[in-house]
Amino acid sequence: MARPIIALLTDFGLHDHYVGAMKAVVLGICPDATIFDITHDIPPQDVMTGALELEAVVPFLPPGTVVVTVVDPGVGSSRRGVAVQAGGLCFVGPDNGLIELAVRGHTDRVVVDIANRSYTRASISRTFEGRDRFAPAAAWLARGVSIQDLGPAVESLARLDVPEPLVSDDTIDGVVLRVDRFGNLITNIGLDHLGTVGAGGLVQIGEATIERVATTYADLPHGAPGALVGSTERLEIAVNGGSAAGLLQIGRGASVRVRRRRGSAL
Amino acid sequence: MARPIIALLTDFGLHDHYVGAMKAVVLGICPDATIFDITHDIPPQDVMTGALELEAVVPFLPPGTVVVTVVDPGVGSSRRGVAVQAGGLCFVGPDNGLIELAVRGHTDRVVVDIANRSYTRASISRTFEGRDRFAPAAAWLARGVSIQDLGPAVESLARLDVPEPLVSDDTIDGVVLRVDRFGNLITNIGLDHLGTVGAGGLVQIGEATIERVATTYADLPHGAPGALVGSTERLEIAVNGGSAAGLLQIGRGASVRVRRRRGSAL
Amino acid sequence: MARPIIALLTDFGLHDHYVGAMKAVVLGICPDATIFDITHDIPPQDVMTGALELEAVVPFLPPGTVVVTVVDPGVGSSRRGVAVQAGGLCFVGPDNGLIELAVRGHTDRVVVDIANRSYTRASISRTFEGRDRFAPAAAWLARGVSIQDLGPAVESLARLDVPEPLVSDDTIDGVVLRVDRFGNLITNIGLDHLGTVGAGGLVQIGEATIERVATTYADLPHGAPGALVGSTERLEIAVNGGSAAGLLQIGRGASVRVRRRRGSAL
Repeated sequence: MARPIIALLTDFGLHDHYVGAMKAVVLGICPDATIFDITHDIPPQDVMTGALELEAVVPFLPPGTVVVTVVDPGVGSSRRGVAVQAGGLCFVGPDNGLIELAVRGHTDRVVVDIANRSYTRASISRTFEGRDRFAPAAAWLARGVSIQDLGPAVESLARLDVPEPLVSDDTIDGVVLRVDRFGNLITNIGLDHLGTVGAGGLVQIGEATIERVATTYADLPHGAPGALVGSTERLEIAVNGGSAAGLLQIGRGASVRVRRRRGSAL
Repeated sequence: MARPIIALLTDFGLHDHYVGAMKAVVLGICPDATIFDITHDIPPQDVMTGALELEAVVPFLPPGTVVVTVVDPGVGSSRRGVAVQAGGLCFVGPDNGLIELAVRGHTDRVVVDIANRSYTRASISRTFEGRDRFAPAAAWLARGVSIQDLGPAVESLARLDVPEPLVSDDTIDGVVLRVDRFGNLITNIGLDHLGTVGAGGLVQIGEATIERVATTYADLPHGAPGALVGSTERLEIAVNGGSAAGLLQIGRGASVRVRRRRGSAL
Repeated sequence: MARPIIALLTDFGLHDHYVGAMKAVVLGICPDATIFDITHDIPPQDVMTGALELEAVVPFLPPGTVVVTVVDPGVGSSRRGVAVQAGGLCFVGPDNGLIELAVRGHTDRVVVDIANRSYTRASISRTFEGRDRFAPAAAWLARGVSIQDLGPAVESLARLDVPEPLVSDDTIDGVVLRVDRFGNLITNIGLDHLGTVGAGGLVQIGEATIERVATTYADLPHGAPGALVGSTERLEIAVNGGSAAGLLQIGRGASVRVRRRRGSAL
């Protein structure tokens, strides 16, 4: 039988023993688990970035993967800790919007409040539920415990509103959602939105105007900002061989406008 | 049979191939091992921080885990390389104080000098014993080799003195031991020390006076420094939604005083 | 049967979900794989550093390891994606010089162009072939697919020229190839080159003159630059208890000269 797979996504960083403690707890309960990291470098307490990164990786997770995800400004408060089953995957973490985006649209979803103390550590630190509640719950799910055994069903999940671009006849107005390691600026403008103006659109961001949407980094002019649809099917501003964030001095939240070129067909 | 578990804690960082080389060596000897990282971001050659991080994670390690731990300013010198068995765990690393804190108080401990070259790489780099001596020794232990086979027994382990707080009738004087990823200031004042002044104590650190010890980050005033007992059962100075280290401009070694509030019962 | 081992080396960093997505894809195809990281902190698009780090770790990889290696300024362009089998290992990545150094001198090598779409994801992002082409190809190799099945054989691999030191009767002139986490300056001068001047050589770098080549960090004078042969058998400039890069304000590309001491025998 295949070994259970547990993936972790947190804002804990790798500087401290925190992620190590979570893995230790998982392996104590489910020694056969294969554990891997999605990322632990979500900016501290930035639930929106956590939710977007989780959404981005979900299509690639093997069926049956249990994801432990902790970005939790409200740790120790009355916000719920939940386990969610949807689309053949399970998610465990705080109910603060981190998980909902990844399971949005799944009609088969089951949500429970992780209240059954049989499946947490005996003592739960008010400051580290990742170690004491979420890691154990995930490990028990990976071992085959049914999600219903973790606690009572919950009707709704906390929901984050990702800013949607404004689409008019001639323009799409969006924002930069995320800056990646390479300085690429990933926007909230998706492949579907772009369809309305076509690849012939002009892209305006900061002081720069980009003449066309390319298909790969290597097609961009060297050292100048370019636009393309990136690996998560969103419009990205990138620099071939450099950093768009650095060159344009622009970060998350910056405005991006895609404009239909005069005379171009839709 | 369960797969053996090997955990790594070093100051090697993740910038170079060094940790990868250690894992390669482990898997070459013990291909069934499950390897996980505690952290590799101990500040270079900071044995004290390594020892404290190791101590913090030990209570959560699955029985039988073999920990390879390398923070080793004296690599290549005459300091011993040791394997230690205690409390159902094994530790492998330099005998410079890094391990002793984690096994202090264990009367069942077995310590050996890793001198048997049958369980190291044939050639041992004078600058990278982590790869050539410690990783192989740990992998052989995980494969089932007896600790006594690694080399001759050793009587004592090098010991680090973690600074202890000064406790008087009215005050506890401690220091910041560690600053974590979130900018939380973790002190050497433990839950047991705090019992002597009660949660009603005032906490003084730098320019700040904190009125009470809270139980969770979410209970702290937003944007102002607060105090609470953190996940390793030590007094922490933290800022709800921010960084205490940043706000107070304070780091490791800073003084912290807990004072009994006038008129408060113990 | 032993579980297949897959090692990753990229410039993707750990800030984003990119490495997590690659591991998810690997485990979806080969759920029994043991995956480990060599490093993901190759400077963005720095193929030379990637090739050198790969070369450094190769001697330690267990037989049968499949290495996925992606540092790929030309992602999405016409550069080939290749799988290479040599010396009992497999390598998968872009054919841009990243792999060739690690397999140089192996006469048994087999190289194929990963063109068979049965062993890639159905849709290949023009900006993330690591996820859609290289991770799947590696996972299929780990599952036992023959390298020949991945695509047609290729005659040659793109080759990087690592700068070679200039050796004369009295001097060796080299450069710093890499600065590691500890601030050690790793040069292109190997143990074999040093043989020509002996350990009695003077080492000159920046403003510093170092009197002899030591054998271990602990032998170096505290706080002053020293020279020794490091764990990859190259001449390193290091500071005992400090950073040579910081102290000398010197980085990659800096010149290093080893000079025979007057009157010393070869």
